[in-house]
Amino acid sequence: MRARAPGTGWAARRSIRAGVGGTGATHAADEEDPVDDFRTIGERVRNWGRWGDDDQRGTTNLVTPERLVAAAALVRTGKVFDLGIPFDQHGPQPGGGIRSNPLHLMSATGAGQNVPGGFHYSDDYVVMPLQCATQWDGLAHVFYDDLLYNGFPASDVTPRGALHDSIEHQGKGIAGRGVLLDVAALHDVPWLAAGTVIRPDDLEAAMARQGGVDVGPGDILVFRTGWRRMFVEHRDAAEFMRDEPGLGVSCIEWLRERDVAAVCSDNFAVEVLPCENPAVFMPLHMVLIRDMGMTLGEIFDLEELAADCEADGVWEFFFCAPVLKFTHAVGSPINPLAMK
Amino acid sequence: MRARAPGTGWAARRSIRAGVGGTGATHAADEEDPVDDFRTIGERVRNWGRWGDDDQRGTTNLVTPERLVAAAALVRTGKVFDLGIPFDQHGPQPGGGIRSNPLHLMSATGAGQNVPGGFHYSDDYVVMPLQCATQWDGLAHVFYDDLLYNGFPASDVTPRGALHDSIEHQGKGIAGRGVLLDVAALHDVPWLAAGTVIRPDDLEAAMARQGGVDVGPGDILVFRTGWRRMFVEHRDAAEFMRDEPGLGVSCIEWLRERDVAAVCSDNFAVEVLPCENPAVFMPLHMVLIRDMGMTLGEIFDLEELAADCEADGVWEFFFCAPVLKFTHAVGSPINPLAMK
Amino acid sequence: MRARAPGTGWAARRSIRAGVGGTGATHAADEEDPVDDFRTIGERVRNWGRWGDDDQRGTTNLVTPERLVAAAALVRTGKVFDLGIPFDQHGPQPGGGIRSNPLHLMSATGAGQNVPGGFHYSDDYVVMPLQCATQWDGLAHVFYDDLLYNGFPASDVTPRGALHDSIEHQGKGIAGRGVLLDVAALHDVPWLAAGTVIRPDDLEAAMARQGGVDVGPGDILVFRTGWRRMFVEHRDAAEFMRDEPGLGVSCIEWLRERDVAAVCSDNFAVEVLPCENPAVFMPLHMVLIRDMGMTLGEIFDLEELAADCEADGVWEFFFCAPVLKFTHAVGSPINPLAMK
Amino acid sequence: MRARAPGTGWAARRSIRAGVGGTGATHAADEEDPVDDFRTIGERVRNWGRWGDDDQRGTTNLVTPERLVAAAALVRTGKVFDLGIPFDQHGPQPGGGIRSNPLHLMSATGAGQNVPGGFHYSDDYVVMPLQCATQWDGLAHVFYDDLLYNGFPASDVTPRGALHDSIEHQGKGIAGRGVLLDVAALHDVPWLAAGTVIRPDDLEAAMARQGGVDVGPGDILVFRTGWRRMFVEHRDAAEFMRDEPGLGVSCIEWLRERDVAAVCSDNFAVEVLPCENPAVFMPLHMVLIRDMGMTLGEIFDLEELAADCEADGVWEFFFCAPVLKFTHAVGSPINPLAMK
Repeated sequence: MRARAPGTGWAARRSIRAGVGGTGATHAADEEDPVDDFRTIGERVRNWGRWGDDDQRGTTNLVTPERLVAAAALVRTGKVFDLGIPFDQHGPQPGGGIRSNPLHLMSATGAGQNVPGGFHYSDDYVVMPLQCATQWDGLAHVFYDDLLYNGFPASDVTPRGALHDSIEHQGKGIAGRGVLLDVAALHDVPWLAAGTVIRPDDLEAAMARQGGVDVGPGDILVFRTGWRRMFVEHRDAAEFMRDEPGLGVSCIEWLRERDVAAVCSDNFAVEVLPCENPAVFMPLHMVLIRDMGMTLGEIFDLEELAADCEADGVWEFFFCAPVLKFTHAVGSPINPLAMK
Repeated sequence: MRARAPGTGWAARRSIRAGVGGTGATHAADEEDPVDDFRTIGERVRNWGRWGDDDQRGTTNLVTPERLVAAAALVRTGKVFDLGIPFDQHGPQPGGGIRSNPLHLMSATGAGQNVPGGFHYSDDYVVMPLQCATQWDGLAHVFYDDLLYNGFPASDVTPRGALHDSIEHQGKGIAGRGVLLDVAALHDVPWLAAGTVIRPDDLEAAMARQGGVDVGPGDILVFRTGWRRMFVEHRDAAEFMRDEPGLGVSCIEWLRERDVAAVCSDNFAVEVLPCENPAVFMPLHMVLIRDMGMTLGEIFDLEELAADCEADGVWEFFFCAPVLKFTHAVGSPINPLAMK
Repeated sequence: MRARAPGTGWAARRSIRAGVGGTGATHAADEEDPVDDFRTIGERVRNWGRWGDDDQRGTTNLVTPERLVAAAALVRTGKVFDLGIPFDQHGPQPGGGIRSNPLHLMSATGAGQNVPGGFHYSDDYVVMPLQCATQWDGLAHVFYDDLLYNGFPASDVTPRGALHDSIEHQGKGIAGRGVLLDVAALHDVPWLAAGTVIRPDDLEAAMARQGGVDVGPGDILVFRTGWRRMFVEHRDAAEFMRDEPGLGVSCIEWLRERDVAAVCSDNFAVEVLPCENPAVFMPLHMVLIRDMGMTLGEIFDLEELAADCEADGVWEFFFCAPVLKFTHAVGSPINPLAMK
Repeated sequence: MRARAPGTGWAARRSIRAGVGGTGATHAADEEDPVDDFRTIGERVRNWGRWGDDDQRGTTNLVTPERLVAAAALVRTGKVFDLGIPFDQHGPQPGGGIRSNPLHLMSATGAGQNVPGGFHYSDDYVVMPLQCATQWDGLAHVFYDDLLYNGFPASDVTPRGALHDSIEHQGKGIAGRGVLLDVAALHDVPWLAAGTVIRPDDLEAAMARQGGVDVGPGDILVFRTGWRRMFVEHRDAAEFMRDEPGLGVSCIEWLRERDVAAVCSDNFAVEVLPCENPAVFMPLHMVLIRDMGMTLGEIFDLEELAADCEADGVWEFFFCAPVLKFTHAVGSPINPLAMK
């Protein structure tokens, strides 16, 4: 059933990966070709088999029980920040394509009800793409060369949903230590321009500026580009969804070396658009999701959290964004909470 | 705009409430008439104005920053339990009425895509009542005598949604100290029969059986009836949604005295059905939501958590169930996490 | 149950109506005040009780069996014109409000199916407002002063739908003799400008230009403004739905005198926008639907039909646009056929 | 793009078809094997290329202008029968699978509106499978061996819809001469039992019983099994959708010889279930839709029409059931009108 050859578990893959080059070779490659070939990078960072041949969770496995306990200890003052945007017709989807903004309809308002004792109730429905607002990408959301994360066949994804790597496998998460890196503040702009490529140097400069906050194994990295603020000020959905500032290809291995559990942003796709190499659309989605097994968090609202972190100098927090367990789904709407 | 008379803030209300009877009178009333008149109880427990005339959050205000910090400290081993049920067509809604089970449709599967570089993606939609599966009831979900929680007029609820008391006001929650009381285990049955009335005595006996675990101010009380287990074993949605074991009217003041922040269960309505007084439908919904301003959590799956608590004797945990911020909505689907 | 006083059937109403003024008085009133007071006009043209106190069909009653037989005889050459627009995401709804364009999702494509014998199938879903594209307005769609057509109370319309005057009562229609009046061609423009008021003189001039084609009892009047053509050329949904050319208030009594069964157009609301009297929004909707009981047909595509009529000089045809029988609904999507 | 070899137009196919057997050979084959191999039958009756290599309408091409004119002349008394069922939550879909009953939600009821002049309006939404109630199957709805009707590749059907053979190509129909054959009345039962195979002999016996009414080229054949009546009496959706009486494989060539334009019924799949040959699921769907290019009409309500035909002895009528033009869709909900 699985497209993976026998004997190619985690250990075998590590040696393959080492053979391809290792860190030094990687840097050399980067110098020659900043966007490298995404398939080559994908091989180097691939986590298939690392948590078992049946794993469907990927890098969220890095949030070990110990790390979760440590993360919870970051709740020190009881401040709560909600990173989800409002879910309504005024969201960032411009329409005309596959994704629309959430449609909310009332199925009961209390009108016309005549219940013993005076009881009245209201009920409501939503119709929405799971990818239209603040969300987790599931591990079956993006793929290439006919394989999903951990080697499951792409033919597993049919109109009935994804038979493997679907979002409900993240049901016991996603929570852990969150770290905010404010790249817009680093560059002293309200938001980065569309097309701005964020590189490891930017992330490390942000860490330095923010008192040396660290990003390590099992952390949820949240980076701010200001792109949500741009939308709130302009209210132009087409502008928001067209291009954006975001991570460049060179960040892939940086995330892999640090064993980050998930990466989230206030833009809509985490990675930069237009893509660095016009011949390759969304290389970070392809490699992070399909090869590394990393869940991406998109369209976050980081304004209030960033202001608070700037004020108190504390850039780490307990992060909790449970997925709704839609069976065989490839994403989940969320309202992530950051607690300090 | 507001239906409330001037000068009837929290202090004024306390005295009105005290004048109505106070605790002693309440108990006397209970002895005479175990279901009392819900309007009288509603007056006694009413929290209108308690957190300001503009408050739209109700008892979740009781989760103070200090209590949240203390709650997070309950994450001691890193175990995570997800209390949401699967969201799919096999849920507990029998159909034929207003509420259906979640409908999941794929808007992209990778088929027919020809994107530069080999990128393939899948996307999906959901159509669902916000009340069909594991959920929070919002404070505009139930009302009587033309007023919502905190005195807002019922006419605020229209087909456009609820102008006040809507679910997005709970956006910075709901998280805090959770306590599980296993009433089914107390009575040594896999599940309580439909129509079983749970009274304060049952809750206190459960606390005693569970090593004296306490339920106090700002806590999220989660009680188990086994009703979800019944559904999983029988797979009969009509049976699940017809009647159920649940809280009786006498629990209202018990919850108020202890200043519980929210109450959740594995049944579909928290309270017992058929209702104790056939002339009054869903008195707990009316009083808890509309008078006390208490958000209810319904259709939880408590099987794994209960087994673990029974095994380790620890019945308290960090509870986190963020609401999705549907604008003007009266409920939210959730996947509550319990972390120990 | 009904808000109507006893003894106010059709005969009684005729005399009331005559007492209000009759045709002569009406014209005088029109000369003084072209927009008159819509309530006064409504009284004059009101059809309540005309087809019985229980009638929920209104003016489509005017398509008698004899008239239907005569209409079918207009199919002389076998040419068929479909007047519905495409139902898809590229329709005229600009988004951001209540109405969206039709959302079409595949629930099966053949992928992942393994059925004995080789059978593969595809299935699909639609999510759509019944008013988003080519449509019939039902008689509960518009009302004022707490009453619907034929005196049913407006409280009949709840989130469960309309208890009276709902669209399924038109289930045996709507078919009959259609007549196209091309007002854009009359004025020799590709389309009339937004805000252009069409008056009885225009309609009669169009009839004269079109060889004296008549519009009489039981006919379905279809008038062309060119507004659909404007949309097809500009593809600007906001422009299409903002203002439009359409019928002025003075056409109401013209339609009533001729006992037209229904009126349809290629604009989105039949009547002119902005409204002639800024203090009264959509007077034709209020009077035609609620007082006369006339079903309106909107967002038709008349381009091909108009070209053919211009070419062969035949402006009448058999018209057939069956309503989908959505129970308690207030409208229906349609694809009207005109057959010559 | 097309999977068809050059030079295999309609003429070429006729000879291939003749070579396979012709009428005589067909009957012989039928005697040996009543269900024959559906692929062999499919080759014999195939209409690919008959109306051009680009045709996407199939047998509705048989309703020529002349035939449409003749059909309209059948409107002799002005009686109208609506053959659509009510579209609501009480329809025949049992739930739990892909297809649900229509979900109707009000987006406006008049509540909470404050418009100049007193205008109030109501609006509504529907969420529905295009195949859940009275419907046309589009020509991309069923296929086998990787090809759709007229040789288009099955890969044309993706989550974006069907690129070929989709329902909007039937936009100028479907109207013509309808003939009702009442097979339940022929056998003097309220409804035929599930699994009852209807054969050409039954259809011809029904024609004889009904005064020799003919079924010929371009006709829309409507046959009654009583299965809708069974549902109305039992209200058991699971029973309705499980098995049914319907056409057997031997009817395929009968329909082809007579050049019927479309076939419709009061059951849910036109053909008998369980299928005659357990190894082949839905052979009529595969051959009629994919090979012959015949659109099927399903879940009709024929009770009132059948009673009228029995009473007046007139079994032919003008039939009009316009498709809603959902772009790239594979079916359409309808409310077919029969006019006599």
